[in-house]
Amino acid sequence: MHRPFRHLALLAIAGLALPAAAQFAKPEDAIKYRKSGMFLQATHFGRINAMATGKVPWDAKAVADTAAVLEVVSRLPYAGFVEGTDKGETKAKPEIWTERDKFNAGATKAQDEIVKLIAAARTGNQDQVKTAAGAVGQACKGCHDNYRRE
Amino acid sequence: MHRPFRHLALLAIAGLALPAAAQFAKPEDAIKYRKSGMFLQATHFGRINAMATGKVPWDAKAVADTAAVLEVVSRLPYAGFVEGTDKGETKAKPEIWTERDKFNAGATKAQDEIVKLIAAARTGNQDQVKTAAGAVGQACKGCHDNYRRE
Repeated sequence: MHRPFRHLALLAIAGLALPAAAQFAKPEDAIKYRKSGMFLQATHFGRINAMATGKVPWDAKAVADTAAVLEVVSRLPYAGFVEGTDKGETKAKPEIWTERDKFNAGATKAQDEIVKLIAAARTGNQDQVKTAAGAVGQACKGCHDNYRRE
Repeated sequence: MHRPFRHLALLAIAGLALPAAAQFAKPEDAIKYRKSGMFLQATHFGRINAMATGKVPWDAKAVADTAAVLEVVSRLPYAGFVEGTDKGETKAKPEIWTERDKFNAGATKAQDEIVKLIAAARTGNQDQVKTAAGAVGQACKGCHDNYRRE
């Protein structure tokens, strides 16, 4: 068992309130959780971006509905980047954990841009959504370039 | 290319409004989407259930917050059960598509029970959450027994 998980298992046995990492019984679950969240985030962002850029016909209601889902799923993946989960079925680079502050700053930047995108989606204005979606795409790419293996 | 996807690609080329299935560029994406949604659903339901049954200390706020996420992610997976996606990296049985009405009834039952669980979570009453979580668990199991391979 990875060390942080053993530690958390002991906490659980002691019946104490558990920190976020303890939400996962094993490292594989944390990896699967963040991958699931990232995939749903990418899928819903991709749908908005396709409409914003005219690849798919603009539909203000679909954009707003998709943004409402994005608002929730975009918050999920980060809890899965638990210590000791850089091995296994993951493209996450070990630098996530050795440069945690920098990684967290990138995650915060992405989330800030997503908040702006959600606000833009609520206006129903395609140009605003396009601008905001471009900034989200850049923020995603920034982190992926540094912290995701090919 | 699977037949329904070819058909949808033609629709996309024609620039028509796309049905739900067209939200996925390829069958693998639909499979990954439903698996991601199911995993996030199971994870968040599992956290509520663990608190409801006393395996993890009861925390009414954590239950309500987790239920708010469950409310969104529990609606996602079903859009991924697109025709022609019974092959590949999936445990989905072909009966999902040959008994679609029965599968849909099971999905609706599960979603109805989740709606009740979310309402119970908002009350902060552990007994109500425990009862509702039990019903959700039964509804999940009912469909999995019939439509998910081991």
